[in-house]
Amino acid sequence: MVAGWPTTYYACIFTSQRTDVEHDLYNYTSSQMVTLAQSQPGFLGVETVREEGGLGITVSYWTDRDAIKAWSEHAEHKIAKQLGKTDFYSWYQIRIAKVESENGFGLDEL
Amino acid sequence: MVAGWPTTYYACIFTSQRTDVEHDLYNYTSSQMVTLAQSQPGFLGVETVREEGGLGITVSYWTDRDAIKAWSEHAEHKIAKQLGKTDFYSWYQIRIAKVESENGFGLDEL
Repeated sequence: MVAGWPTTYYACIFTSQRTDVEHDLYNYTSSQMVTLAQSQPGFLGVETVREEGGLGITVSYWTDRDAIKAWSEHAEHKIAKQLGKTDFYSWYQIRIAKVESENGFGLDEL
Repeated sequence: MVAGWPTTYYACIFTSQRTDVEHDLYNYTSSQMVTLAQSQPGFLGVETVREEGGLGITVSYWTDRDAIKAWSEHAEHKIAKQLGKTDFYSWYQIRIAKVESENGFGLDEL
């Protein structure tokens, strides 16, 4: 378990395909959203990976579903989500999942 | 919801950092594991992304935890997991999570 994280928590799995436009606006907006998410109540952590071809997976971790709901309704996040639909992504899928167990390897060395 | 998937199902979130060695063996093994996973009972789907720097997220989806457990104990998978620790990854984290809700955008076009 990650030090300081609760024993049960939630994952928000965001799988997306970037369009090939608006690179500067996308980079600015996604960076802003990560910074803003980190300051929200209930935020635990985030892992994000995007390939050159534009396929990406971002998993954010939260204490509970209320925290995820509040973040999804944040005014600035709502604007970013609208840009996501009109400009940034050709498709995306979001899944909210309750983490029930975890194990790792090599994480002590981080 | 993905057509044909059950209303509740599980996600296995695998976040990992590749080492910079054994590229051929890794590519062969990971490809084999994806093919093998797809033939296991309870397998629903998989999404995988790895950046140039070696950070990767793979999310596989399964009908239930028993299916994930059976896959984790599959003989060939066990050998691959051992290679994962000795050669392929400097660290990894696996989380098993129950998907409670989902929504998407643009997926009809896929």
